[in-house]
Amino acid sequence: MIDQWNGRPPPGRIAYVDGRYLRHGAAGVHVEDRALQLGDGVYEVCRIASGRLLDEEEHLDRLERSLGEIAMAMPMGRAALKAVMAELVRRNGARDGILYLQITRGALRRDHPIPERPPRPTLILTVHPISPAAVARRHADGVAVVLRPDQRWARCDIKSTQLLANLLAKTEARSKGAFEAWLVDRDGFITEGASTTAWIVDREGQIVTRELSHAILPGVTRRVILQTAAEAQIAIVERRFTPEEAHAAREAFLTSATGGAVPVVQIDGRPVGEGKPGPLTRRIMALYAEHSHQT
Amino acid sequence: MIDQWNGRPPPGRIAYVDGRYLRHGAAGVHVEDRALQLGDGVYEVCRIASGRLLDEEEHLDRLERSLGEIAMAMPMGRAALKAVMAELVRRNGARDGILYLQITRGALRRDHPIPERPPRPTLILTVHPISPAAVARRHADGVAVVLRPDQRWARCDIKSTQLLANLLAKTEARSKGAFEAWLVDRDGFITEGASTTAWIVDREGQIVTRELSHAILPGVTRRVILQTAAEAQIAIVERRFTPEEAHAAREAFLTSATGGAVPVVQIDGRPVGEGKPGPLTRRIMALYAEHSHQT
Repeated sequence: MIDQWNGRPPPGRIAYVDGRYLRHGAAGVHVEDRALQLGDGVYEVCRIASGRLLDEEEHLDRLERSLGEIAMAMPMGRAALKAVMAELVRRNGARDGILYLQITRGALRRDHPIPERPPRPTLILTVHPISPAAVARRHADGVAVVLRPDQRWARCDIKSTQLLANLLAKTEARSKGAFEAWLVDRDGFITEGASTTAWIVDREGQIVTRELSHAILPGVTRRVILQTAAEAQIAIVERRFTPEEAHAAREAFLTSATGGAVPVVQIDGRPVGEGKPGPLTRRIMALYAEHSHQT
Repeated sequence: MIDQWNGRPPPGRIAYVDGRYLRHGAAGVHVEDRALQLGDGVYEVCRIASGRLLDEEEHLDRLERSLGEIAMAMPMGRAALKAVMAELVRRNGARDGILYLQITRGALRRDHPIPERPPRPTLILTVHPISPAAVARRHADGVAVVLRPDQRWARCDIKSTQLLANLLAKTEARSKGAFEAWLVDRDGFITEGASTTAWIVDREGQIVTRELSHAILPGVTRRVILQTAAEAQIAIVERRFTPEEAHAAREAFLTSATGGAVPVVQIDGRPVGEGKPGPLTRRIMALYAEHSHQT
């Protein structure tokens, strides 16, 4: 059963699970793993560019924060974890791709409360190639998004593996020919994308993204962009914005560790600004590309 | 790694995963299983009493409904599934316990949207003993509950494996010496318990439980009790109620497939009514016990 793999992993791909480097197709967890049964786990996705892990420390900072919020500790020291991450990238010969890292509370007889004597956490690392051509195409042409109700739980600041609301929204987006769904909360404000951060350039020409709270993930790429933009004297306002503002925006874009900054040229079928990547968006993309090559 | 099992499963315990009966300690799923990575799966918990599965058809009805809501089909026909369930109970020699059944969308290269060509779903069945003595004690003495904010997602009617909010609330309850957390929604009404349905007997002597909606699970035991109560001419009102009403209630109880109906004798440290199981609660418990022995 562990060998079940309906996709076709490249032969030779290697995963890391609980202290062992394994053939990817044979890497598994116990059926009583608490992430499988209860959603009791967190994760990170780190971009591999030219064989290096981008913003690795920031991802590990966030991982540690997510774990803390659900009363878990890091399964090993940071230096050891970084060594495993680097070794897995090396063993997979990965130049361009993503490193997926998941930590679960481990396998134990199913019971809801956090066990008083928790089992050993399960640490899973996998490496996946990404298509640089597909990313480049999205950067050049931009993407469409649709607006969907935000049906997620109240602690979206924790990067947990509970992504059913996200994937249902993303599936609806894809069925409408869009790349991403931007989620609208009960108060009528956009929170973020199903797996990306949402940004607009408002009518006054100001870049706007939602402020951090329990309602959104503290995006690593979001943070990097806020920082590089500040260094380049580009003002960014952190505040909530509405679908109406998004429709009236001059420009829009979305960000993630996997794809960097990507222009949004259409929202719910209506063009954003002139319907093509805008100048401020391209400026942010250039700053982020520069950052990616430097670090 | 699949052999990781920090608890101690009884030797000889058998699990069923994807067409195979396996030693429980060796039963696993692939690390790219979508329930592990994305919360993309649903489950049922069915009580085994005297070797028989209680309210089996109702659980399978709900399972089918949950699957439909996330665009999945049953992995096999109902008759075949029932045969597997019965066989697993038999192989484990289970007289009193629970059957846990989980269906995931299967293992596939990680990507959020529901795959256009989905992999074979993963079907997992396990059997666990429960302690009849612990259940009997709760029935006799009643339990305490605490009130916690409902932080779950907007589709709690789907029995998904995304239970992090539930388990965090349950953990807080246990840390306060309570058995369960009753969850309070943003509008100030009690939805349900972290893993049970909430009921009160209000000041007018009327049994009250929240009406079905996306905010609560359509409990199988809830449904059975509504039905047996109606047959016994006991009126039950399905409506929302507040923490204030719960505190002022004459009686309270909670229900689940695992424990049946259990008196609630304390809410947030304050006694319910006289602080002991009330007469209407005992009546409901008797009706449910009768139902359990008959079916």
